[in-house]
Amino acid sequence: MPDYQSILEDIYQKLSLDPDRGEVASYIPELANVDPNAFGIYLQLVNGESYEVGLSQTHISIQSISKVLTLAMAIHIEGLNLWERVDIEPSGNPFNQLSLLELESGIPRNPLINAGALVIADVLVTHFKEPKKEFLEFVRTVTNDQSIDYDQKVLESEFSTGFRNYAAANLLKAYDNLHNDVEEVLDFYFHQCSLSMTCAQLAKAFYMFANKGKDMQGIPRLKKRYVKRINAIMLTSGFYDEAGEFAFEVGLPGKSGVGGGIIALLPNEFVISVWSPGLNEKGNSKLGMEALEMFTTQSNLSIF
Amino acid sequence: MPDYQSILEDIYQKLSLDPDRGEVASYIPELANVDPNAFGIYLQLVNGESYEVGLSQTHISIQSISKVLTLAMAIHIEGLNLWERVDIEPSGNPFNQLSLLELESGIPRNPLINAGALVIADVLVTHFKEPKKEFLEFVRTVTNDQSIDYDQKVLESEFSTGFRNYAAANLLKAYDNLHNDVEEVLDFYFHQCSLSMTCAQLAKAFYMFANKGKDMQGIPRLKKRYVKRINAIMLTSGFYDEAGEFAFEVGLPGKSGVGGGIIALLPNEFVISVWSPGLNEKGNSKLGMEALEMFTTQSNLSIF
Amino acid sequence: MPDYQSILEDIYQKLSLDPDRGEVASYIPELANVDPNAFGIYLQLVNGESYEVGLSQTHISIQSISKVLTLAMAIHIEGLNLWERVDIEPSGNPFNQLSLLELESGIPRNPLINAGALVIADVLVTHFKEPKKEFLEFVRTVTNDQSIDYDQKVLESEFSTGFRNYAAANLLKAYDNLHNDVEEVLDFYFHQCSLSMTCAQLAKAFYMFANKGKDMQGIPRLKKRYVKRINAIMLTSGFYDEAGEFAFEVGLPGKSGVGGGIIALLPNEFVISVWSPGLNEKGNSKLGMEALEMFTTQSNLSIF
Amino acid sequence: MPDYQSILEDIYQKLSLDPDRGEVASYIPELANVDPNAFGIYLQLVNGESYEVGLSQTHISIQSISKVLTLAMAIHIEGLNLWERVDIEPSGNPFNQLSLLELESGIPRNPLINAGALVIADVLVTHFKEPKKEFLEFVRTVTNDQSIDYDQKVLESEFSTGFRNYAAANLLKAYDNLHNDVEEVLDFYFHQCSLSMTCAQLAKAFYMFANKGKDMQGIPRLKKRYVKRINAIMLTSGFYDEAGEFAFEVGLPGKSGVGGGIIALLPNEFVISVWSPGLNEKGNSKLGMEALEMFTTQSNLSIF
Repeated sequence: MPDYQSILEDIYQKLSLDPDRGEVASYIPELANVDPNAFGIYLQLVNGESYEVGLSQTHISIQSISKVLTLAMAIHIEGLNLWERVDIEPSGNPFNQLSLLELESGIPRNPLINAGALVIADVLVTHFKEPKKEFLEFVRTVTNDQSIDYDQKVLESEFSTGFRNYAAANLLKAYDNLHNDVEEVLDFYFHQCSLSMTCAQLAKAFYMFANKGKDMQGIPRLKKRYVKRINAIMLTSGFYDEAGEFAFEVGLPGKSGVGGGIIALLPNEFVISVWSPGLNEKGNSKLGMEALEMFTTQSNLSIF
Repeated sequence: MPDYQSILEDIYQKLSLDPDRGEVASYIPELANVDPNAFGIYLQLVNGESYEVGLSQTHISIQSISKVLTLAMAIHIEGLNLWERVDIEPSGNPFNQLSLLELESGIPRNPLINAGALVIADVLVTHFKEPKKEFLEFVRTVTNDQSIDYDQKVLESEFSTGFRNYAAANLLKAYDNLHNDVEEVLDFYFHQCSLSMTCAQLAKAFYMFANKGKDMQGIPRLKKRYVKRINAIMLTSGFYDEAGEFAFEVGLPGKSGVGGGIIALLPNEFVISVWSPGLNEKGNSKLGMEALEMFTTQSNLSIF
Repeated sequence: MPDYQSILEDIYQKLSLDPDRGEVASYIPELANVDPNAFGIYLQLVNGESYEVGLSQTHISIQSISKVLTLAMAIHIEGLNLWERVDIEPSGNPFNQLSLLELESGIPRNPLINAGALVIADVLVTHFKEPKKEFLEFVRTVTNDQSIDYDQKVLESEFSTGFRNYAAANLLKAYDNLHNDVEEVLDFYFHQCSLSMTCAQLAKAFYMFANKGKDMQGIPRLKKRYVKRINAIMLTSGFYDEAGEFAFEVGLPGKSGVGGGIIALLPNEFVISVWSPGLNEKGNSKLGMEALEMFTTQSNLSIF
Repeated sequence: MPDYQSILEDIYQKLSLDPDRGEVASYIPELANVDPNAFGIYLQLVNGESYEVGLSQTHISIQSISKVLTLAMAIHIEGLNLWERVDIEPSGNPFNQLSLLELESGIPRNPLINAGALVIADVLVTHFKEPKKEFLEFVRTVTNDQSIDYDQKVLESEFSTGFRNYAAANLLKAYDNLHNDVEEVLDFYFHQCSLSMTCAQLAKAFYMFANKGKDMQGIPRLKKRYVKRINAIMLTSGFYDEAGEFAFEVGLPGKSGVGGGIIALLPNEFVISVWSPGLNEKGNSKLGMEALEMFTTQSNLSIF
């Protein structure tokens, strides 16, 4: 077994010297206030061991990483029916997200782009009486951590600047692919994005995707065949138009968020979460991408 | 001078026999209730004479025809500055309206597509304290007809089904090309679309575009150079992706609305308005297009 | 009647002072050798009078202006059947010419974009045994000028650099919308583009479009209804993605070429040709566009 | 270890009953002559064992499967420089292949779409004096089988119908992303597509991608880090716009060809090749896709 602690510390030290941290996301005002030098890694092995370095216990806004967790809930509810409302193909360029939605008559390309995640949110809003409460409960349960909560300030930021999401939700509605009120779906969606978690908590939440659907308490949360498929979607579509690059350089299923968090995993082996708020030009954490590339190279672990 | 009354009657009789009336717009519920066999024409010569046939005095929902009137108001206010926020090129295919807006970073292709008309609406909302009242006042004044008004039922229909317009407005907002609240701009925009006018009133309202900017009372309402340019925009962009076809077959500047109305004009000669609610597959009045083609052929009048 | 000679001289003098001449086309090597300061205008009235200023008798490469002349030949042969193979709508952005062709399954948007002109060329190659000779003969006849000829050096340049045209022709072939060999059609197309004419000759060649189809000798060359329609296509599609701008600022049907020539006309009144090789960023002659705008403003003549 | 022979036979029997075989590719005339009921599978374990069923020893036209083999040769030559001329992102919809190339200024989205494979072909044409001979030699060497050869009849079919490839090559040339003559590159490209191999030979050729770069004789042919990356590209881009679906349902890196062949592999475990000429609507072998889905389900082997 590799000496994981040494590997993490080596990555941390080397990347800490990198003067180019990328750009902290500014379109959500609350995210722009984060220290660009923040950096943390948490590694959770499936065997129960864990390793960490840097700000692995600091709360961050998980943003789009939440899309994998809502997808897990929706696929549990809807099963294969889900794919009538959202496709599973990589989306290519991000600039044309609404364009794609128009071209493809309101069927989002996959559940990890915003339009797709809005459809997933709609499924949960339809199914649950109190979807925000249920989602929070789900995350708290699989992590066995009742302290996890929404960040009210980030939430307000989302509401006041989410014009593109309003546009996408209304376009979905025009195509009859949103069954609830636009406002209600966006309320849930902005909440899920505003969830605040540490790298450690994130790794625990995603443990089930590396462990055939069982969470850290050994409780089955998701069918094995769904786990396999969600991992496939993360690999092909987890990093916007850098998904191919990530598969190419890192070779793990994963998901990034505009808050600078990234989660990645090797089935049956580990979950790793990284946080550094500076983003590269594709919108993924710059140091996070580099850290994961170094980790798979040094540990010699990848699905390929 | 051609015998206009005979021409109109000939067109009316021939087209009345056409069993294929096209499809009445159904996406706005209130419009779907109109009699598909309704048909009327009104011809207003610049010299003051007028001719009419069929339901030329029935009120119809002018819908997108209103975009030319708000454009006239906005260009009067903003002059050339207007073109920093909206372009003047034909838009090609309609299916990709939001796509184009994304591709062109929030600058609508021209002021006669919905996105462009929303920017024009935003200009008026910024400039006037009571834009809905001012717009109504403008139309009443140039037609010298105080009876013109918004149709409340159509208006409610617009609000409850205008998801694409909500999407477009939010996307413009995301690109900082909408300065007022989305709701406020849409409130104005839905009002302008719901304006109810007869063919006769429409022809009178557009008289200024055929008469170098002076209305039927001889009062200057728009600078000559703006009239020339608005006519150019109507010719290249007045009929969605059938603009080329209309220029080709009819050869007049004009504008259609989804309510089945069409207005067209020959500078210094006449304004003609036609109404028949059935639409062709491009979204323009089927009989209206045919009537105008017959009219220019029989009268031998066109700009080309 | 306006004092045309004074107007032309005024335009010539004012624009001659403009230090910004645009960029001479460089992608065809032979065109890049032209003097960027060259500038000439020729005005041919329908009543027979003519006025000129500057290099109006210098030979230029007419390039895309030729598309209107081949269109006239093809519409004479095929009539309405032509529109089954090519559409008549404006094309919007030029960057996506092949994209549009793919999106629209091999039907070019209009006959004045390259793909459309290739279909027109194919029609002529099918119909004539010696299409290059026939085209030359047609131009010589309508201008009554046997000296007009292809420019061999430009022709070689076209062949060696026309990769985009090869791409478009092959794509048309893939969609079964090219009936002859790609090489044969391109041979004709490159010839038509390489035709060398003076501003004076161009104005004479286009006289028929301003004179209901009759050429300068009074001989009918094209049916009136085709003239009207070709003028409409020039207005909506004659200037790439600046067609709306040209209609807006100038208000005349016209066509530009990458050699820096522009032809424009007012039905029943005049034909005007301008040449200045520097192009604006849209690929139209910079001084040419400005000259025509000044001309319609000063002469107060436009179709709108 | 699963009972592979039983699994293969079970799949073979169940799928042999499927009346819907998809459509045999017709655009290449020579491919259209194949028996639509043909079906074979070959499984090569990394440990040296092999299993087969049906027509696993019949020669098929490998078509696009060849792209992975030329990519391996090119990456060996160019290393990371290769990625300046071709990207590694999934391409999404296939209908817009030339559109994407235009939108992205001549940089193909990945090396497994036709435009990307043409750039790869160009690299080999530049590097080798006799590229066709070298490619054949490479395939014969890694399979240790001198009988493999090009199929002359398929080759002629390619030349006479490859208009889209001519279009793509010329467009690449227009963007300066093809350094050799279009004809020369296409000559090589059509040869590689016409390579004729059995399922057994294909599995042996791809053995190196499952075995860290070493072929069946244990000879290193490709660096480990390149193997990992090519596998990643196969996973994200190996099945046109069904790549996401394949990752989702099968979960293996792989590549399909229009001849009905599919190759897929699990690193360190096995290579599997399937052939059935009928294609689904996405252009991948219908039975082939189903067979692989059944194989990973029954063997419980996948990268996820």
